[in-house]
Amino acid sequence: MKMGAQDKFPFEQIDFDKGGGLIPAIAQDVVTGKVLMMAYMNEEALRATLETGRAIYWSRSRKVLWPKGDTSGNIQTVEKILVDCDQDTILLLVKQHGMGACHTGKFSCFYRKLTVTGEIEELDE
Amino acid sequence: MKMGAQDKFPFEQIDFDKGGGLIPAIAQDVVTGKVLMMAYMNEEALRATLETGRAIYWSRSRKVLWPKGDTSGNIQTVEKILVDCDQDTILLLVKQHGMGACHTGKFSCFYRKLTVTGEIEELDE
Repeated sequence: MKMGAQDKFPFEQIDFDKGGGLIPAIAQDVVTGKVLMMAYMNEEALRATLETGRAIYWSRSRKVLWPKGDTSGNIQTVEKILVDCDQDTILLLVKQHGMGACHTGKFSCFYRKLTVTGEIEELDE
Repeated sequence: MKMGAQDKFPFEQIDFDKGGGLIPAIAQDVVTGKVLMMAYMNEEALRATLETGRAIYWSRSRKVLWPKGDTSGNIQTVEKILVDCDQDTILLLVKQHGMGACHTGKFSCFYRKLTVTGEIEELDE
């Protein structure tokens, strides 16, 4: 995203109220198409994301802005922001830097699948 | 998913509590890789999804099970269920049937993007 986009963003069109001030933000890697993670944003986080061009979420547990990758270096630069039909969820198309999105070191947080025998096991890929 | 998987699913490993009994469920189309929608599931909805092999969400507004596509015919058959690192969000890899996932007739609910001039406009594709 172009820096400065936050000045013109129609925040009033995003339904933050439904989720008590937070919207789910799904991050999808633009290169591989893999869904990387899902986190939350409040208006401040979305504004900071637009201002900086990198994904900045809201940490529900720590109750602070969470600039993804500040500690690990695994930042996400945002290439496109999509909005869903009822405008209460966004999809970030990001370039994932570093090792990956997950704190475990995996590229995606969705690195395990349910098997038909009821196990949760790591994907082969 | 194989029918009958609900008998063995380790429901106790999924963190429904964090979201007051609900987990976000992201649906991604297995053919195109497009993220289709995000909705919620409670344990009952996840169990019904595993039992039937099609995506059955929980409608937060109507407070009932929401078998996706029952009215429209645009059902989603579930090919794989991925679980995220902290086990409070799932990613459904689905085959989208009919017109698409969105009630507007679009294939994906994420059919609009934010432009650098602060508009929300339809994607070209």
